[in-house]
Amino acid sequence: MKDYYGKELEKIKFIEDTFRKIVNSAGYSEIYTPVVEEFELFSMKGGEELRNTMYVFKDKAEREIALRPEFTPSVVRAYLNKMQHLPKPVRLFYIGTVYRYDEPQFGRFREFRQAGIELIGSNSILADIEVVDLLLQIYSSLGLSKDIEIKINNIAIYRKIFNKINLDEAKQEHILHLIDKGKREEALRELKGTLYTDLINFLLEQNQVKIDSLDTVLSEVSKYENLELTEEIDKIKAISRIISDFNIKVNIDLGFVRGLAYYTGLIFEVKHYKVPFSIAGGGRYDSLVRLYGGNDTPAIGFAIGVERTALVLDSVDKLQSPKKGVLIIISTNDNRNSSEKDMISYGIKVLHKLRELGLIVSLNLKEQSISKLIPSYLEEGYSFIVIIGKKELEEKKITIKNLENKSQLSIPENSIEEYVKQII
Amino acid sequence: MKDYYGKELEKIKFIEDTFRKIVNSAGYSEIYTPVVEEFELFSMKGGEELRNTMYVFKDKAEREIALRPEFTPSVVRAYLNKMQHLPKPVRLFYIGTVYRYDEPQFGRFREFRQAGIELIGSNSILADIEVVDLLLQIYSSLGLSKDIEIKINNIAIYRKIFNKINLDEAKQEHILHLIDKGKREEALRELKGTLYTDLINFLLEQNQVKIDSLDTVLSEVSKYENLELTEEIDKIKAISRIISDFNIKVNIDLGFVRGLAYYTGLIFEVKHYKVPFSIAGGGRYDSLVRLYGGNDTPAIGFAIGVERTALVLDSVDKLQSPKKGVLIIISTNDNRNSSEKDMISYGIKVLHKLRELGLIVSLNLKEQSISKLIPSYLEEGYSFIVIIGKKELEEKKITIKNLENKSQLSIPENSIEEYVKQII
Repeated sequence: MKDYYGKELEKIKFIEDTFRKIVNSAGYSEIYTPVVEEFELFSMKGGEELRNTMYVFKDKAEREIALRPEFTPSVVRAYLNKMQHLPKPVRLFYIGTVYRYDEPQFGRFREFRQAGIELIGSNSILADIEVVDLLLQIYSSLGLSKDIEIKINNIAIYRKIFNKINLDEAKQEHILHLIDKGKREEALRELKGTLYTDLINFLLEQNQVKIDSLDTVLSEVSKYENLELTEEIDKIKAISRIISDFNIKVNIDLGFVRGLAYYTGLIFEVKHYKVPFSIAGGGRYDSLVRLYGGNDTPAIGFAIGVERTALVLDSVDKLQSPKKGVLIIISTNDNRNSSEKDMISYGIKVLHKLRELGLIVSLNLKEQSISKLIPSYLEEGYSFIVIIGKKELEEKKITIKNLENKSQLSIPENSIEEYVKQII
Repeated sequence: MKDYYGKELEKIKFIEDTFRKIVNSAGYSEIYTPVVEEFELFSMKGGEELRNTMYVFKDKAEREIALRPEFTPSVVRAYLNKMQHLPKPVRLFYIGTVYRYDEPQFGRFREFRQAGIELIGSNSILADIEVVDLLLQIYSSLGLSKDIEIKINNIAIYRKIFNKINLDEAKQEHILHLIDKGKREEALRELKGTLYTDLINFLLEQNQVKIDSLDTVLSEVSKYENLELTEEIDKIKAISRIISDFNIKVNIDLGFVRGLAYYTGLIFEVKHYKVPFSIAGGGRYDSLVRLYGGNDTPAIGFAIGVERTALVLDSVDKLQSPKKGVLIIISTNDNRNSSEKDMISYGIKVLHKLRELGLIVSLNLKEQSISKLIPSYLEEGYSFIVIIGKKELEEKKITIKNLENKSQLSIPENSIEEYVKQII
C-alpha cells in the first residue's frame, strides 16, 4: 500500500475533482459506504477471480468480513436499505478506496481508488447512453480522449443463449469466467452438444468489428430468430455511435467478457495505448438488486481506476501547483513579556485578515534572524513576507517585503485589503 | 457501520470542506495514507485503550495488520519515509475513515471520520498557537464558536515530574492512563513515597482554573524550582489568551489527560454543551518521530471527529441543497429508426451545452408521455424541462418548459447560452 502527497496526490485529486464536477452536473448524488462489509455481500456475485483476491477476516464476533474489493454491491445494499422509495431512476456516485489481496503489480497496489456511478431503476437505452456519455466526458475533460479506446460488448447476447439452453446461474458464471480468462476452447467444450455452439463460436471470433460491419453480424444472428439477438446488437450500435460522436475510438468485441459475474447487458472498458490493462470499466447489471432481495430493478454503472488513470496522465497542463503565498514573521523571542503577547495577538489578527482575502498564509516558526530567514524562504518558493514587530504593533501597521524584487513597504492595518487586491 | 448520503452526507461534506478550505489557506498539504497498516505502528504508542479496540487481523502472509484507529502514526511514518529532507516545519492534513472495534455508541460507529493536521518540526510556542488557532477558526467557520469550550492542559508538567523521579515510559503511560480514566487515587498510590506526590495531588485538583487564577498555580509550582514548571504553565497561559481572543470559552484543567499515550506537551479538546464527549482533540507529541526511528523532531496536531461535529451542527444556514436543475426529454420510442438516432445525438449535444453553462442536467429515462412526466418532475423539484423531438431536431431548436409558471419557449440552438444566462 502507498501514501500519496505532493505532486502525485495533485494528479489523483485532479482526477477525482474532474469526476466529481461532471457527475454532479449530471444530477448524481454522492454516497459514502463503509470499507468493511460482510464477505457474503461481495462473494455472492463478484465472480471467481474477485472471491480469491479479497481481504477476508473474522471479527471478534466470528463474523466473516471483508474489505470492499469494489463499490457496486455496497451501493446496491444501501439502495435496498434506504432508497427504494425514491423516484426512479436513482443516480449515485462514489469516490474511495478498494482492496485486492493479490501480488502488487504495475498499475495496482493492494489498496487503490475507484470513482464511479450507479444509475439504478432504468433499462432504457438512454440510460446506457447517459452512463457511457459521462464516462467519455470525464476522459475528455482529463484531456485523454485522443489516446483512449472504448471496448464494448453486450453480455445479454450470451445470457439469452444460455437461458435458452437452460444453463443455471453458476454454470453461466463459470463459462463467462472461462471466456474472460481467454480459455475459449474450454468454454466451448462446456457447451458441447448444445444447440448454439456454432453461434457462440462465431460470436467469440468477432473481436474487432467496425460499426458498419455490424450488419454482417446482424444477418448472421438473425438466422436464430427465437433468440431475439437483433435488439441486443442494435444497442451496441447505438452506443458505438455516441462514442464515435466524441471522436473516440470504439472497439466492438463480441468475445469480450468482464471479470465481475453480475453483468447482464452492455459492458465496456476504457483502454489506453500506454498501459496493458483497462483504466475504467462498467456495465449493466439488471439482476443484482433482485439477487440481494429487492424488486426487479435494472441498473448500470461504471468505475474509473483512479491510480491507473493517473498513470497515463503524465503531463497535466491544468495542474498548477498552488502558490506558496505569504509568510508572517512575528519577531518575538520572549513569550513572557506582555507586549510581545500583544504582538502575537496582533500577528494572528493580520494572519486571519490575509487568509480571508484568499491568500495562503503561514506563520514563521523558525527562530532565526530575519536576514537569515529571507534567503531560505525565497528558496522555498515564498514571494512575500509580512513582518510584525514592536514598531508595527505600536503604529498598527505591517511591513511587507517582496522577496523577489527586495522592495519593502509599510502599510497601515486598515489598508491591507486595498493593498492585497493590487498585488493579486 | 453506516452509509451516508443525501442531507446527512451534505453535513459531513460541509464540515470536511470547511476544514479543507481553512487548512489549505494556512499552507497545509493533503496526504492520503492507507487504511490498512501494521498493527505494531499503532500499538507501540497508542495507549492501553486504543490497543484494546483496534481491528486487528492476520493477512495471508500471517502478518498482523490493523485498520487504522487514528492518523497520526501513519502521517509520522510517511514523514519518516519520504519527507525528512523537506524544509521544516512540514505542514500536512488528512481527511478519512478510522476504525474502533468497541460497542457502537451514541456519537460513534465502528467506522468514523477524522479530519486533522500535523505540524512537524517546530517546538515554538507559535506552532502551538498556529495549531490551536486553526482549530478555533474551523469551529468558528462552522458557526459553533458560541457553544463550544476548549479544555487545555500541558502534559509536559507531568512528564517533567515523572522524569525527575526516573519513571520509565511504560510506567508514565500507565499512570497517565489511570488519571485519564478518573482513577486518581490509584495513580497517586503508584507514586507513593516519591518526592512530588503532594505537587501532583495539588495539580490534579486544579480542574477549572481561570486565566487570571493561573498566578496562584504559578506561585505554588515555583516552590519546586528544579522542575522548571513555570514555562510550561506560561504556555497554557499564552494559548488560553488566544482562545479568549476568539471569544471562545476556555477551561484550564491541570488534571486533564488524553487517551493517546504519545503526548508530551500541550493537549486540548473541544467540548460542546449538547454532547457528553469531546468532538475534537489534539496535542504536542515531541517523541513520536524519534520512537519510530527518526531524528528528534517536535510535532503537534489535532483531529476533528467529523460525525461528532455533525451531531452538534443541527441547523446549517449555509447548507443549501443544490438545485435539481434541468431535465431533458428526448421524445424517442423506437431506437432503430435512424432519424431518432439523430435526435439522441442532438439531445446529447444540447445536454453537454447546458452542463457547460453550469446547470445540473439529467436525461429523462422514463418511458411515459410528456403530459404525465410534467407533474411528476415538478413534484421531484425540477424547475425546467427541455424537450427534444422531431420538430426541434429539424429546426435546430429546443423547447423549454418552465414547470412552475407553465410557460413554454422555443429557442434556436445557438441562442441557448444567451437564454440560460437570463434565467440563472
